[in-house]
Amino acid sequence: MKKYTILILTGIIVILAVGLAGVLLFLKNQPPQERGFQPLVEIAPLEPDSSKWGINFPNQYATFLKTKTNSADTAYGGSSGFSHLERDPRQVILFAGYPFSKDYNDDRGHMNALQDVNTTGRLVLDRESPKRTPGTCYSCKSSNNPALWAEMGMAEYDKTFFGDLGKRIDQPIGCANCHETGTMRLIVTNPALQEALEAQGKDWTTFTRQEMRTVVCANCHVEYYFKGDGKYLTFPWENGTRVEDMLAYYDELQFKDWEYPEAGIPMLKAQHPEYEFYTADSTHYKAGVSCADCHMPYVRDGAAKFSSHDVHSPLLRPEQACGQCHSDVTYVIGRVKVIQDEVYATKIKTEDALVDAITAIKGAVANPNANPDLLTQAQAKYRHAQFMWDIVSAENSMGFHNPEEALRILAEATNLARQAQMLAAQAAADPSLLAVGIYDQMDPKPVPAK
Amino acid sequence: MKKYTILILTGIIVILAVGLAGVLLFLKNQPPQERGFQPLVEIAPLEPDSSKWGINFPNQYATFLKTKTNSADTAYGGSSGFSHLERDPRQVILFAGYPFSKDYNDDRGHMNALQDVNTTGRLVLDRESPKRTPGTCYSCKSSNNPALWAEMGMAEYDKTFFGDLGKRIDQPIGCANCHETGTMRLIVTNPALQEALEAQGKDWTTFTRQEMRTVVCANCHVEYYFKGDGKYLTFPWENGTRVEDMLAYYDELQFKDWEYPEAGIPMLKAQHPEYEFYTADSTHYKAGVSCADCHMPYVRDGAAKFSSHDVHSPLLRPEQACGQCHSDVTYVIGRVKVIQDEVYATKIKTEDALVDAITAIKGAVANPNANPDLLTQAQAKYRHAQFMWDIVSAENSMGFHNPEEALRILAEATNLARQAQMLAAQAAADPSLLAVGIYDQMDPKPVPAK
Repeated sequence: MKKYTILILTGIIVILAVGLAGVLLFLKNQPPQERGFQPLVEIAPLEPDSSKWGINFPNQYATFLKTKTNSADTAYGGSSGFSHLERDPRQVILFAGYPFSKDYNDDRGHMNALQDVNTTGRLVLDRESPKRTPGTCYSCKSSNNPALWAEMGMAEYDKTFFGDLGKRIDQPIGCANCHETGTMRLIVTNPALQEALEAQGKDWTTFTRQEMRTVVCANCHVEYYFKGDGKYLTFPWENGTRVEDMLAYYDELQFKDWEYPEAGIPMLKAQHPEYEFYTADSTHYKAGVSCADCHMPYVRDGAAKFSSHDVHSPLLRPEQACGQCHSDVTYVIGRVKVIQDEVYATKIKTEDALVDAITAIKGAVANPNANPDLLTQAQAKYRHAQFMWDIVSAENSMGFHNPEEALRILAEATNLARQAQMLAAQAAADPSLLAVGIYDQMDPKPVPAK
Repeated sequence: MKKYTILILTGIIVILAVGLAGVLLFLKNQPPQERGFQPLVEIAPLEPDSSKWGINFPNQYATFLKTKTNSADTAYGGSSGFSHLERDPRQVILFAGYPFSKDYNDDRGHMNALQDVNTTGRLVLDRESPKRTPGTCYSCKSSNNPALWAEMGMAEYDKTFFGDLGKRIDQPIGCANCHETGTMRLIVTNPALQEALEAQGKDWTTFTRQEMRTVVCANCHVEYYFKGDGKYLTFPWENGTRVEDMLAYYDELQFKDWEYPEAGIPMLKAQHPEYEFYTADSTHYKAGVSCADCHMPYVRDGAAKFSSHDVHSPLLRPEQACGQCHSDVTYVIGRVKVIQDEVYATKIKTEDALVDAITAIKGAVANPNANPDLLTQAQAKYRHAQFMWDIVSAENSMGFHNPEEALRILAEATNLARQAQMLAAQAAADPSLLAVGIYDQMDPKPVPAK
């Protein structure tokens, strides 16, 4: 009977071990609050100071801190904060008359957001002018915002002058921009995003966690504009989030960011429309991949598995990012290179077409006999062409977030630029305005105005 | 001891069974000749009659026969043989002066190739003209070819008139176009492919079987032209197989397929450049996927596993085709739709630009005072623009074989077409030649000339 006793005991031990493993596995996959996570310290609601959250979440916080010092670049992007205008002086021409023609640096890591907005040449220039910069410019730069929005309301926040609001802002982007204290769940914090989703009949509180791992990025990584005298932060999504939808919205509103000098064109500047561009039927989005899957991949520190908060290009650590799904990382990096090189080459051709077109329109505007109807048509086509180009150009992936959409948009932007040029020549009845390749013939090339 | 005897016997049986299974598995994965396959009948070298090969390979042959009757269509392609000109009358304009403006039907299945070449309106028209059609037109239409090339040599074959050569041709495309009798290995049979590979320093006999599962398709699915008076079948690959490489080759040679009437443009017609387009760094090609993997997927009939020879669009049986690698076939079909819809919409915009441009060039040619230098530049740009468009348009996948390449090429084709239009207007100093959207304003729309 001794044998049977051993067998029975072994059986019981095996069953208990399997059961325990199951329970542990279940708990491991629960968010902190659901597995009865006991925080070391209590975090006040809307707490701006990320270092306090960091006591409870040391791994996330330690990786988040790296966004301060990481300055590695990729072929077309990265975190060094290089100058777009020096890399590609065509943009000095395309943004003439607007601060972006003087100072247009690539974005750095999240922890540098506050410092960079406080020192960017664009705002320094703007603040010295009579028209003072609105507080709206802080909307995506600080974890002080959720508390300030709760206290002041967004309308008041946006109305406050940049210099005045700045006195209450001392934190860069941080935990409170995406997380709810206590539960740590991902939340929409930017009232402009809340309103834009509502306008589309969407309720983010019904979204899955995986959906939220993309939607929280839309707190900032979107196209937006400052509405009305109160500079009210608004996303132009009422008709949808495709570039054509946003153009229709801006046209209806007759909105402009600035007027192109000597060309009379009401221009639009695209911001950083990663969310709209990525969700426009891109292959990764349709496959259910979230922003965080690639930009905040799961990593390990000893026994702990957590989402890295050192947000940066997946190309800088492709094994960590792409390798979560793709077993053939070398192949995948090769794909990114092919796609980005093709998009870049096509983007430069669009810029050449835009430079030719804006030169023609300036020529037609200078001609007192130009046909005003044709000229208006030329200006309208140019406005669309440059905004479409800018959606691809300002978007931070050199097309990779949605390759087909990038190339489709660039093809149409070039088409519209060339049509604008032809309309300008027709308006002035002046075939000399049809010159092509103007940028290439420029010597010296334009430099950023200081 | 009886117990041990049983155990030992059981062990021996298990070892034998595992060994036998291993041997069977090994043999199953060997090509026929290597596993000592004994054919039921001997097939003569270069045997044109596929039904004889079918005795030894009944599964492959039975599926091959289906290419005769399969007539299903997809959104943009398929096997029904529909008219491209009726679906998209812009092409009636783009191919004006060339037989493709009168008769341009989609390709049907392999077994219909001979019948279709013998009855196509293009050749009927051509044969009635004084310039008689060369035998070269049979090059991709019959399994009689390998034997005829061996007997006559390709130069003599191509020189023979179509009507005369046709008396010796009674088989459609078949086994002998891709396989060697006896070994059944995949081989290059078309001397033009052999020569084109040699010109690039490539030796196909060193290729892997997986590489050959793409290269044999290049026996036919390529861009080609008829060289010199002997109409010698030639692939324009000397500089490479990208569209720009082929254009440089044709320009150097000052080759033209026809001259566009009233526009004086030496035009090029793209054929069916699936091989060049797919191998231009497409994602599937770079991932090691062969043409046969998708178009001739492995299927089962009882215990037999074989490559289906019913070559058709993977979209008609996506579970069989895409499902070999992709577990999420519904997602994959959705991707194809997104990509093809975007490429189609962009392609139509390129066609609109081409129609505007050719109209302007005809206007400038009709103007006796037009500047000849500028006109020549306009004509050269147009030649390139239409060939680039045609590489995407004539290629049988509506861009899916290489989406980024399709959209990159179309963007540049539109750019060049618009530049051609501007140069024509400059040449004639006539801004009225800058009209845009001419096709949309046509009423009635063009119909295929009979």
